[in-house]
Amino acid sequence: MTAEAPPTAQTQVTAQAPAPKAAGRLPVALDAVGGDHGAAPNVDGAVQAARSGVSVLLVGDRVKLHAELGKHEGSSRLPIEVVDAPDVIGMEEHASDVRSRTGASINVCTRLVKEGRAAAAVSMGHSGATMASALLTLGRIRGVDRPAILTHLPAQGGFTTLLDAGANADVKAAYLAQWARLATVYLRVLEDREDPTVGLLSIGEEDHKGSALVVEAHGLLRALHGQGINFYGNVEGRDIFRSTTDIVVTDGFTGNVVLKLAEGEAKVLLGWVKEALNSNVKSKLGGLLVRDSLRGLAERMDPSTYGASILIGVRGLAFIGHGSADARAVKNAVLRAARAHEANLVQRLEAAFQAST
Amino acid sequence: MTAEAPPTAQTQVTAQAPAPKAAGRLPVALDAVGGDHGAAPNVDGAVQAARSGVSVLLVGDRVKLHAELGKHEGSSRLPIEVVDAPDVIGMEEHASDVRSRTGASINVCTRLVKEGRAAAAVSMGHSGATMASALLTLGRIRGVDRPAILTHLPAQGGFTTLLDAGANADVKAAYLAQWARLATVYLRVLEDREDPTVGLLSIGEEDHKGSALVVEAHGLLRALHGQGINFYGNVEGRDIFRSTTDIVVTDGFTGNVVLKLAEGEAKVLLGWVKEALNSNVKSKLGGLLVRDSLRGLAERMDPSTYGASILIGVRGLAFIGHGSADARAVKNAVLRAARAHEANLVQRLEAAFQAST
Repeated sequence: MTAEAPPTAQTQVTAQAPAPKAAGRLPVALDAVGGDHGAAPNVDGAVQAARSGVSVLLVGDRVKLHAELGKHEGSSRLPIEVVDAPDVIGMEEHASDVRSRTGASINVCTRLVKEGRAAAAVSMGHSGATMASALLTLGRIRGVDRPAILTHLPAQGGFTTLLDAGANADVKAAYLAQWARLATVYLRVLEDREDPTVGLLSIGEEDHKGSALVVEAHGLLRALHGQGINFYGNVEGRDIFRSTTDIVVTDGFTGNVVLKLAEGEAKVLLGWVKEALNSNVKSKLGGLLVRDSLRGLAERMDPSTYGASILIGVRGLAFIGHGSADARAVKNAVLRAARAHEANLVQRLEAAFQAST
Repeated sequence: MTAEAPPTAQTQVTAQAPAPKAAGRLPVALDAVGGDHGAAPNVDGAVQAARSGVSVLLVGDRVKLHAELGKHEGSSRLPIEVVDAPDVIGMEEHASDVRSRTGASINVCTRLVKEGRAAAAVSMGHSGATMASALLTLGRIRGVDRPAILTHLPAQGGFTTLLDAGANADVKAAYLAQWARLATVYLRVLEDREDPTVGLLSIGEEDHKGSALVVEAHGLLRALHGQGINFYGNVEGRDIFRSTTDIVVTDGFTGNVVLKLAEGEAKVLLGWVKEALNSNVKSKLGGLLVRDSLRGLAERMDPSTYGASILIGVRGLAFIGHGSADARAVKNAVLRAARAHEANLVQRLEAAFQAST
């Protein structure tokens, strides 16, 4: 990875700093009833985002949302509007339900984007439903066979961009090559990385190592090197945290396992560190002294820093967050969505694929 | 995972405690010139293992090995013998070279096992060559299509047993079912776990979630539940460190990514903890107080605790370690190999597969 600004710092700055002006800009449509904790963290996050100058459409049961908004002092003066959606796809329901339940909050969000009334759709609700709704309503960018979930993992050099993090369990080699191009444009447009490096996740650094799929993808990526992507070659599991490359492409099965393992391991390890600091009187005393320093580390590992992951490759902006997202995650997701709109990300992606096909 | 003795403790105890007597037992054949650091850590580890009562055949260049042995005082009185092997397959060479280079140290090791002159072959050298040599020389257990690398990852409940950690990048659903059975017998015989739980690595807990391969494997494992394995269902990446199940089965591509990611993340995270403890005077002072407690944690994460991974499913014992293995890893690998021989692991595996086919 080419040298970067410090990790959390960069994300924080880019997420918070030049917030688009509300006036004349499209609002972000937030699926405000989605997620494990319902409306509360969504509305709280929306209020925080609105205070930073981003206008938000809160989509969901209007009575519930107005009640929740009423808890935030001065919220009536913020650029927040409630859009009624009578239905919501619950976390335990089927993603395919989006086809028939047109009044579901996520469908209302993606339609607002489709109709040019919202900059982006953001949901902490049912991931599969969000993907399905975005795909059905917005369609794909020409030249992209399958949209992918693009996410960021904390790493030595700041963060590593990983895709697909779970949209496609079974893939073709061509998808991986398309994802490498999508992620390259994404980092260029949203993170100011001029020529990000791309690694292909495999089980050996040598070109011929890996599954049949990976060996085929290696050939496609090698051919694209210099023509829109900066292909580094194969990378291994250990390279993700080492920041060997800016981008790591893999199938959605492996990518989802990587994402969940990385988060799970961080949680367990930090728990063990806390345990060790409480194991005896001497450690407890030391623990008090190191507490502040370790807090920064925990924050660095916190998925809510990144807010949500973009479903990249659809013709419109759609962001998918953790069901367990807190207000900070919601706010960061809304700000990130506004920035992507501001930067004309979708148009830039379309142009990149048009130029080469 | 059913409740266990504390993690490192258990492994340590089982690895070190009832060491088989040297007399009347077969020695362990160690590929003593394999690995990133050549003979030194191998001979050192062999000396430590021999001091615990396990006899060792040091296989490799006899002049080099005798010279290395000479550095260890009293080594001439230990149950260690040097077996000359003029050739060694280097870390950068091709695994397929084992076919023609019969004098290579790893081939000598597996032949010693085949001829009943050694209990097991252990190598920290070229993993691919070790697998190929073991497979070619020893063959497969009847009923096993593809041997797998079985490894242990530190986890909340002690450790999680993962396979395949990299022997087979492209697999069939039937392999996963066979590996679940092999791992079950392994834990029963070597770790005293009566009825270990088996999880199938996927990207959702629901039965129908995952790749086409995983959905098919789920059906096979479900059918085996109660007939030799204790199938829990699908598990996700986060479950590996949470110890949701004793065993996690997956294809060798995903398993290898998981193993290397887990090790790489632990290294980076512990590095960040150290950095945080050095970030200012207050933290430095605290760091001194917590140092001992954190050392235990670092040891818990150290792959050398487990020594080496078994190539399970071949008709004979073969263990594959890290190229970077230190003497402690070599010693633990040799002790583990001796224990597996002592417990008649291969015969027990064969019996389990015979009973059901």
